[in-house]
Amino acid sequence: MNSYTEYSPSQIEQRSFEIITSELESKEVVINGNIPVSSLPDSASYLAVIKRCIHTTADFDYSKTMYFSRDAISILKGLIKAGATLVTDTNMALAGINKRKLSTHGCSLYCFMSDEEVAKKASEAKTTRAHVSMEHAMGLDGPVIFVIGNAPTALMTLCGAFDEGEYEPAFIIGVPVGFVNVTASKERLIDTGIPCIVNKGRKGGSNVAAAIVNAVLYDM
Amino acid sequence: MNSYTEYSPSQIEQRSFEIITSELESKEVVINGNIPVSSLPDSASYLAVIKRCIHTTADFDYSKTMYFSRDAISILKGLIKAGATLVTDTNMALAGINKRKLSTHGCSLYCFMSDEEVAKKASEAKTTRAHVSMEHAMGLDGPVIFVIGNAPTALMTLCGAFDEGEYEPAFIIGVPVGFVNVTASKERLIDTGIPCIVNKGRKGGSNVAAAIVNAVLYDM
Repeated sequence: MNSYTEYSPSQIEQRSFEIITSELESKEVVINGNIPVSSLPDSASYLAVIKRCIHTTADFDYSKTMYFSRDAISILKGLIKAGATLVTDTNMALAGINKRKLSTHGCSLYCFMSDEEVAKKASEAKTTRAHVSMEHAMGLDGPVIFVIGNAPTALMTLCGAFDEGEYEPAFIIGVPVGFVNVTASKERLIDTGIPCIVNKGRKGGSNVAAAIVNAVLYDM
Repeated sequence: MNSYTEYSPSQIEQRSFEIITSELESKEVVINGNIPVSSLPDSASYLAVIKRCIHTTADFDYSKTMYFSRDAISILKGLIKAGATLVTDTNMALAGINKRKLSTHGCSLYCFMSDEEVAKKASEAKTTRAHVSMEHAMGLDGPVIFVIGNAPTALMTLCGAFDEGEYEPAFIIGVPVGFVNVTASKERLIDTGIPCIVNKGRKGGSNVAAAIVNAVLYDM
């Protein structure tokens, strides 16, 4: 596009999704490595998530790399409708998730990464704030949706507690980004069988984490 | 990487940059379309910015698409040393920028996008909150570094005011992401000659905006 046209934000969003949809027509969108989204009974809800990840990154790799556990989106919607608590490991995702929409379902959203007590405990125990944050979140009442956009350590803490039979995360959005332990932590999450949405490989981030939550909220 | 090893966050960051550095060895990193970074006198400071963009996205496209106006990094460092004000158009960038580091230089950081008065003015004037936010920022005293990670409208407002001789932004980090007006708004910014760092094309975002600011802060 070489010329600038004034659109309203809602027009820009609509037009953006039209462009994404149009460019995806020449690609086969797959989930879980090799399942064409078009073969799924509720393909629109999967596409809504994948397109919003592309919308927030302008990166069409997300049309190939996302993983959804069985019935992931309907499980996630059910939890949100029931007013589940969301906990994220990044203040940027906390800022980016649509809190007005969440609150209409009675959901709360927390990030404990900047809490002074978390920093103190992590320092005393010579561990990471992400680890202590997740331990804190596992002590919350009721089902928790974890929204992990940064720390593979957060995923590993949750998977470890699950494997030991100590805690059952209701749902995990597992999209840390990076080069060290990130890919392995996502594969481990998938192996646990915990209901989850993951972007396999190195890519992800707090923007992608927020985009996935928002896509599901806007699709409800 | 198939096995998980426990690292501290600082070790993970160091190891991540080693991996990025190693993978970049097989690519020619260029800025401004065709200038090899290795040919620049202060190549390390350019690489610090580019590598942190890759670190936050796991996307090596940033090794080819970034634009730096002449002496951009030294101008930006000078402004930060002088305690300039930073204004961003996204609450996610606000959350992601290292405020502790900024404050050591006496810099303030604002995002006006969620201000009630901004929403009210935008609604009354039938314009965008991004436009009103930038107008508000242009009324601040002293030099302002603009950190634009979302709204091409914000870039267009600043470029328009500059072209009309109404306002001179001290510096613009111009990395909105998206499909509508985004590429054009970045090209327009480059054409103004305002000191800037831009990622050309569709890619960018609040995470990239925060990464650029943080890369420069950590390099000071």
